[in-house]
Amino acid sequence: MNHQYKLASRPVGLPKKETWTYETNPIPSPQEGEVLVKILYISLDPAMRGWMNEGDSYLPAIKIGEVMRAGTVGKVIESKNSQFSVGDYVTGALGVQNYAISNGQNINRIDISLAPLSNYLGVLGVAGLTAYFAFLNIGQPQAGDHVLVSAAAGAVGQVVGQIAKIKGCRVVGMAGSPAKCEYLEKELGFDATINYKTEEISKALREKCSQGVDIYFDNVGGEILDKTLLAMNERGRIICCGAISQYNNTELYGLKNYFAVITKRLRMEGMIVIDYMKEFPSAIMEMAQWMKEGKLQTREQIEEGIEHFPEVFLKLFSGDKMGKLILKVAEDD
Amino acid sequence: MNHQYKLASRPVGLPKKETWTYETNPIPSPQEGEVLVKILYISLDPAMRGWMNEGDSYLPAIKIGEVMRAGTVGKVIESKNSQFSVGDYVTGALGVQNYAISNGQNINRIDISLAPLSNYLGVLGVAGLTAYFAFLNIGQPQAGDHVLVSAAAGAVGQVVGQIAKIKGCRVVGMAGSPAKCEYLEKELGFDATINYKTEEISKALREKCSQGVDIYFDNVGGEILDKTLLAMNERGRIICCGAISQYNNTELYGLKNYFAVITKRLRMEGMIVIDYMKEFPSAIMEMAQWMKEGKLQTREQIEEGIEHFPEVFLKLFSGDKMGKLILKVAEDD
Repeated sequence: MNHQYKLASRPVGLPKKETWTYETNPIPSPQEGEVLVKILYISLDPAMRGWMNEGDSYLPAIKIGEVMRAGTVGKVIESKNSQFSVGDYVTGALGVQNYAISNGQNINRIDISLAPLSNYLGVLGVAGLTAYFAFLNIGQPQAGDHVLVSAAAGAVGQVVGQIAKIKGCRVVGMAGSPAKCEYLEKELGFDATINYKTEEISKALREKCSQGVDIYFDNVGGEILDKTLLAMNERGRIICCGAISQYNNTELYGLKNYFAVITKRLRMEGMIVIDYMKEFPSAIMEMAQWMKEGKLQTREQIEEGIEHFPEVFLKLFSGDKMGKLILKVAEDD
Repeated sequence: MNHQYKLASRPVGLPKKETWTYETNPIPSPQEGEVLVKILYISLDPAMRGWMNEGDSYLPAIKIGEVMRAGTVGKVIESKNSQFSVGDYVTGALGVQNYAISNGQNINRIDISLAPLSNYLGVLGVAGLTAYFAFLNIGQPQAGDHVLVSAAAGAVGQVVGQIAKIKGCRVVGMAGSPAKCEYLEKELGFDATINYKTEEISKALREKCSQGVDIYFDNVGGEILDKTLLAMNERGRIICCGAISQYNNTELYGLKNYFAVITKRLRMEGMIVIDYMKEFPSAIMEMAQWMKEGKLQTREQIEEGIEHFPEVFLKLFSGDKMGKLILKVAEDD
């Protein structure tokens, strides 16, 4: 049977279990030109919260009654499309369900010789690709640049910091627990960390980014972005990648220090990874090579069982996870 | 005698007359290598308010007791510097006073055959050059782009709008009175205007920028910037040039809609004209050519008498002026 989470209502603030309906339906059959994909892993990403709101953004809003949109990795188990064979592993936004039909347009075959399947939802998936394109294209890093990353132990942040080190930058990461800070410093080679839950941000920035910030990779928005504006060096770049501190807020934080953008000639630039889709294959090859050389590591937190989707999803916002959060929904058999 | 306005205290909110002391001192004498400049016109610019605050910015803060910093146009009346002759017209930040000594490093000779003297404080001065470099370099205008300019009847805004028209853009200007809006539409060829004092901004943006905004040239910051973020088109550019709505505020407005920077992949970039100093001569030549061809007009409001500096300065913030605000302090005799 096909278990599916469908959007039942648009949440105000944090989603609840009742935000979705949990349905059990028959496994669909592919028509001519289609394939049936058995979903193995589902990606949990902060961006999903934005898609649940009223109003289209860079993607259309998820409709009420529609399967909850999510990135997935799966296996083709039936094919009426000459581009795909039974047994092919694919990735695509097939949603929070066990089985999905695709016409082949919204899935891509993945090479399991490069990395484990789940990596295609993390370091070699949307999160890693976001880190790669945003940091390199918008950040324009030079060796010796001082880089700050928020949500540094998250799926995107951990990759940003390691690419920054590969490019010869000094990297400071912000994270929300001693264990996360230790992971960043001891395992990933960050030069310093700030525990934003226990340290006063402005003071910590003065101490740990004592030469200012050339590139700030912002995953959180809100007060941390506001305070970081004052720590930027002239002509610094702020990569506006996410604002997880705000996604569930009904009252938005107001950025007071944007005047620093003028006086310091800063560049703040937004980023959505789907704009770089044509370049995904070459980026995946480069990152896979870094992984092979031991320069790029990844931490995944893999939870199990599609029925746990609502509570696992909320771990994105509570901080109760480390690295890339993934839901395993089936064995690869 | 040399009348001088010196900074007496750092204002909180709007400056008052007592913010400065008004002194009368002997005319200074140039030493070897120096010139004596008789100041003819003094430029009044919103940026001067920022220089009065505690704390260095892109320029050092004006010190208490120091002559109030301001752009000026003047005439060399005594020279012990081989680079300058008596009778040369020069421009430089010589301050709110009648006479100034310069070692020649902080003044530039100007060509009075190109344009009237006062233009070197406006369209061919810092204001016009700011418009030119910011709009062309950060805005990257393409013919057909939809351009929005705030403080459009101001010294910078009027030049931005005209350069946008020269580049084939559609231009909407925001200003604070029917007379200013009429000037922009009838005399400068703006396609539409918004009176931000009488129109509801979001509604006016929907109506008058019905195809969205590709380039927003922001001179005002605050609520207008916040609402405009929601009117931007994907990959729009916001030129962060000024925030006059905030300069005298003790409580800063918080920008709530910066999340649009992510979802729309906007670029917000700050600009300080002194970064382009080496390119000033070629820009002045190009703008003077546009003036000759009738493509670039300028409106100046010239007030008279150095003793009126405090009240004239405040017209920058009350909106009680049109175009470039200049204080004439001596006849060119």
